[in-house]
Amino acid sequence: MTTIAERITASFNKQGLMTTLGAELSHVADGEVQITLPSSPHLSQQHGYLHAGAITSIVDSACGYAALTKAPDGFEVVTAEFKINLMRPALGKAFIAIGKVQNAGRLLTVCTGEVHALNDDGTPGKPIALIQATIVNIRQDG
Amino acid sequence: MTTIAERITASFNKQGLMTTLGAELSHVADGEVQITLPSSPHLSQQHGYLHAGAITSIVDSACGYAALTKAPDGFEVVTAEFKINLMRPALGKAFIAIGKVQNAGRLLTVCTGEVHALNDDGTPGKPIALIQATIVNIRQDG
Amino acid sequence: MTTIAERITASFNKQGLMTTLGAELSHVADGEVQITLPSSPHLSQQHGYLHAGAITSIVDSACGYAALTKAPDGFEVVTAEFKINLMRPALGKAFIAIGKVQNAGRLLTVCTGEVHALNDDGTPGKPIALIQATIVNIRQDG
Amino acid sequence: MTTIAERITASFNKQGLMTTLGAELSHVADGEVQITLPSSPHLSQQHGYLHAGAITSIVDSACGYAALTKAPDGFEVVTAEFKINLMRPALGKAFIAIGKVQNAGRLLTVCTGEVHALNDDGTPGKPIALIQATIVNIRQDG
Repeated sequence: MTTIAERITASFNKQGLMTTLGAELSHVADGEVQITLPSSPHLSQQHGYLHAGAITSIVDSACGYAALTKAPDGFEVVTAEFKINLMRPALGKAFIAIGKVQNAGRLLTVCTGEVHALNDDGTPGKPIALIQATIVNIRQDG
Repeated sequence: MTTIAERITASFNKQGLMTTLGAELSHVADGEVQITLPSSPHLSQQHGYLHAGAITSIVDSACGYAALTKAPDGFEVVTAEFKINLMRPALGKAFIAIGKVQNAGRLLTVCTGEVHALNDDGTPGKPIALIQATIVNIRQDG
Repeated sequence: MTTIAERITASFNKQGLMTTLGAELSHVADGEVQITLPSSPHLSQQHGYLHAGAITSIVDSACGYAALTKAPDGFEVVTAEFKINLMRPALGKAFIAIGKVQNAGRLLTVCTGEVHALNDDGTPGKPIALIQATIVNIRQDG
Repeated sequence: MTTIAERITASFNKQGLMTTLGAELSHVADGEVQITLPSSPHLSQQHGYLHAGAITSIVDSACGYAALTKAPDGFEVVTAEFKINLMRPALGKAFIAIGKVQNAGRLLTVCTGEVHALNDDGTPGKPIALIQATIVNIRQDG
């Protein structure tokens, strides 16, 4: 029998973009998922900081997988929409995205998430980005 | 003297993430910028479609550069926030992101944008994503 | 047999808040609804302009009813979420909110909308607010 | 000398819409503001619940005033944009909106907020709405 953590890991590993970015699934719990991302020049914007697109990719995925931990059996999830505030330059050696379920309905799940740079001791710095997302439960085929 | 199109091209070429994705700056006009992106397995989500993170990266950039075409002299732009609806699976050989300025204030510019799959004849299909973004004008250093 | 315009009018007339604001349903077409609102001191914010809450109320309703014109038979609609940019002070004698369907799915409908002050000749001024909303189709009881 | 709580109270009392709704400023602290609203038929939507426009009005105001508690001297605030999720029907005798500052920059402040129905014992029920807002610091005239 597959646990939700195994199911999320298998799905994450099928995402070509996560491999391209170098992102890692670092924590799966009931209602919360974390993804970490080392900084790299191949992910930069024009000033050398981490690109907003990379920040968004990991925190959107963290929210989607957090929602999946609350989805009913036989359902998968699709992100319908999200809104993200980018609050300061994404400067650091590594980043962590944390997605949390705020409300899980039958049809729609609302998540919030944050991205932080990681300090050298592994503690998170001030938030770089804040997201609020709406995820839809979709019945799996088969 | 540098035109705005040359300035945008130079900035775009400095974005490591745009190279990593394989995105191209395909159109720059006053208040509108377009970015195209060929589909590729290295940009996929778990079902093989284009990842929402890749869709978001190109349309956020298109909006930011569209805002830059309206920024006062001596200013650059930073995306403060955006909201994106993902309306259908991103299935296709190539995609186009179109960012347009809706209102350019002294401080804040509001843009909207769309992403479409491109049909074989180069015409856009139904919209895959719709974005509404707020971009800040920031005085350049030096 | 009830037309969609009659159904929307009946629903609008049951909204206590629309009466309290003094809003009027001014146009119903397939995929587009307009609501007008005369300015009044009882709707002001602290500087005497129309309050963002009043602006939001009419344009959110215009989007919801626009979505209803596209809902399948036997369904009603509920707004799941929206995002609104407030672009300039809401100064004027009257205002118009226009809600339009951008994409109508089986489950979710995405609308955009605008609010304008009305000039003395009835033409709309520059946009005051821009909204992007997600509306859910819900099966009606009974 | 005017405290920030006195300044917020004076501004709130000038808002015609807050009086029209029957809203009360119930708590002002550094970085957090609460507004309460008794339910009333004159604020209803078509099913008799509190209208999303009323919910939005109080939580947007709570976020704006929370941002004002962090604004530099000589500045006032204007809401640039917000995004709100409406998570369940707004059913109850009274409601509370809580706005909190998440990040206060020199120019932009990001707030989040929640609306809850109040139980008979005054404790908050499950969240009805979740908001994420961007507020701009504007230099006061004179």
